[in-house]
Amino acid sequence: MKIHKKTILPLQFKANACACGIKKSGKPDLALIYSCVPAKAAALFTTNKIQAAPVILDKKYLRKSALKQAVIINSGNANCFTGLKGLKDSENTALNLAKELGINKESVLVSSTGIIGKKLPVEKIISAIPGLAAGLSFNGMGKVAKAIMTTDVFSKEITVRLNIAGTPIIISGVAKGAGMIAPNMATMLCFITTDANITKSALDKALKNSVEKTFNCITVDGCMSTNDSVIVLANGASGNKLIELNNHYGEFFGALHKVCLELAKMIVLDAEGSTKFIQIKVKNARDFEQARIAALAIANSNLFKCAMFGEDPNFGRVVASVGASGIDINEHSLKVKLGPLHKKEIYIEVSLSQGDSECTVYTSDLTPQYIKINADYN
Amino acid sequence: MKIHKKTILPLQFKANACACGIKKSGKPDLALIYSCVPAKAAALFTTNKIQAAPVILDKKYLRKSALKQAVIINSGNANCFTGLKGLKDSENTALNLAKELGINKESVLVSSTGIIGKKLPVEKIISAIPGLAAGLSFNGMGKVAKAIMTTDVFSKEITVRLNIAGTPIIISGVAKGAGMIAPNMATMLCFITTDANITKSALDKALKNSVEKTFNCITVDGCMSTNDSVIVLANGASGNKLIELNNHYGEFFGALHKVCLELAKMIVLDAEGSTKFIQIKVKNARDFEQARIAALAIANSNLFKCAMFGEDPNFGRVVASVGASGIDINEHSLKVKLGPLHKKEIYIEVSLSQGDSECTVYTSDLTPQYIKINADYN
Repeated sequence: MKIHKKTILPLQFKANACACGIKKSGKPDLALIYSCVPAKAAALFTTNKIQAAPVILDKKYLRKSALKQAVIINSGNANCFTGLKGLKDSENTALNLAKELGINKESVLVSSTGIIGKKLPVEKIISAIPGLAAGLSFNGMGKVAKAIMTTDVFSKEITVRLNIAGTPIIISGVAKGAGMIAPNMATMLCFITTDANITKSALDKALKNSVEKTFNCITVDGCMSTNDSVIVLANGASGNKLIELNNHYGEFFGALHKVCLELAKMIVLDAEGSTKFIQIKVKNARDFEQARIAALAIANSNLFKCAMFGEDPNFGRVVASVGASGIDINEHSLKVKLGPLHKKEIYIEVSLSQGDSECTVYTSDLTPQYIKINADYN
Repeated sequence: MKIHKKTILPLQFKANACACGIKKSGKPDLALIYSCVPAKAAALFTTNKIQAAPVILDKKYLRKSALKQAVIINSGNANCFTGLKGLKDSENTALNLAKELGINKESVLVSSTGIIGKKLPVEKIISAIPGLAAGLSFNGMGKVAKAIMTTDVFSKEITVRLNIAGTPIIISGVAKGAGMIAPNMATMLCFITTDANITKSALDKALKNSVEKTFNCITVDGCMSTNDSVIVLANGASGNKLIELNNHYGEFFGALHKVCLELAKMIVLDAEGSTKFIQIKVKNARDFEQARIAALAIANSNLFKCAMFGEDPNFGRVVASVGASGIDINEHSLKVKLGPLHKKEIYIEVSLSQGDSECTVYTSDLTPQYIKINADYN
């Protein structure tokens, strides 16, 4: 397995991005990922009860068919809390792109990120589609990584290369955001492409298990977005021996997990105003879920996050947040280790003395700069 | 019903406080509330799984007997996460006080607030008990309100006077803290005394229902303490016609609720670093619990709290936090009203369009000052 910090697009994928005028800054705000052949798609979305229009539409299209060829993403507007008009706008985006590419609309997925509750300027997107499609290229993914940014400081890309039974395959991902950390903005978005030849069930399972221990194990402010989406397209273009649940699954999963983990860590590293990158490992738990609940409770405690910013070795705050998390615990079996706090990377270990499961959660500290960024938007 | 912002001790209650040396500052840190006759006690404690030694002890003593005569409170040390030694220390405190007052130890309740995880200097408390008891007086409650403070800026006292079937009764309360807002400190503590003549079951119900809509409806940082306690003592000294569940209950409940509500609001007003006092009313909910879950989700959202600090009318953050709260909701039935944001008091109203229940939650904004206070402790 080889890891590259840049996108190397898998075979038969193209991409492009442009500025269509949604962002007032004039920065790129529209991106397109395209597979020349129909690709198997797997996707996971926010569990927020308020879901953005593109999330609702994607779920509908995924129920109709698992084969997709294009993902179109806009930044600067979340198209959320926009009612039936918002849904119509996402549908029109898909329809116009499908016509342009000569595919059916259900082969398209749509994503949005940005301000909640403002009407999507869909006419700007529709006008830009012909140029966007015409400019698709095999090295356009770097542009996509930039165009999906909102208040991200750096773009997030990663590529993993490996061999499946002697055939090289590529898994490549881009991501943006950090939960709902940014002002008025929403969303963690992640788009992964691969030329692996894999069954739909193996792809679904690999994505679910990867996200569980990566994107679902990061938190910046505990705020869950209305637009969070992780989408993977596998077009089989590398022609490798078919990956199935009982055949080469582990190798593929390991690589996909790596892609998700590196992107998830980049999101935490880019957390607004943060000065620390904090790893919290809860071990000796009854099961993974118990460990994750405890680790997230610590990671989401404002008092803990302030102490980390202040480099204050305050283990009482760790103890109190585990106790408040709702898991079954007593003080006699709880052990807390705090690593050195003066470094940029901080390591915390908590033992529950109840079993042999563990979970690592990644988070950032809470700083005056976070508040400044999130208070001074208007 | 008459309301006074000072403590007027009910009949047959005495109080006192002193500095016994737990706080390095030399400020008062030990307080005693005493009823000359055995009083019926009702109490509610933190649901944190990690519970401080005095909480564990009080629960044990309350199981043995509902009649209490004294509450001894120290500030500056939470006596939490201190193991069997901590429990022994709380027990010794009760035992020594009981001897001094000539009552049995199960008639004593013990409370602590302060640093978690440090050994309680119990010998300082024990040495101070004789002087503390000797100084008990009918106007000592103001001293108690001050001695239980940790990082509180002002002391919190309230008295309500009313007539039950022609007999005047007094309900008086003191409180400290704001959840786990203070550095290394824990705890919301509240002590209420009344000379009302009331059955134990009516007292229990009145306290439970009052706390439900007052102390359980405030949040500063969503962090639940290991020491939270609300204790009410009713000694019957006013000689009013017995208050029972079906007799004068409503009048008593109304007054107790008022005491709890005013103290709860004072805690939010005193929230560390806050510049805003925010009321969030969620109405047209299916039931009270649904309304409270939604209101607390908004109140605990860092992004919402930052927006309030910045006076940013960002209703998208309200919508997203309700959606993430787990309650059953869709965007078409959700209505949000934001009052003017430039004032010190901010009013938010959310309608769920599902029923006729409602809940109001009180909270503060999140400010750079909060982080400074909670980061710079050591």
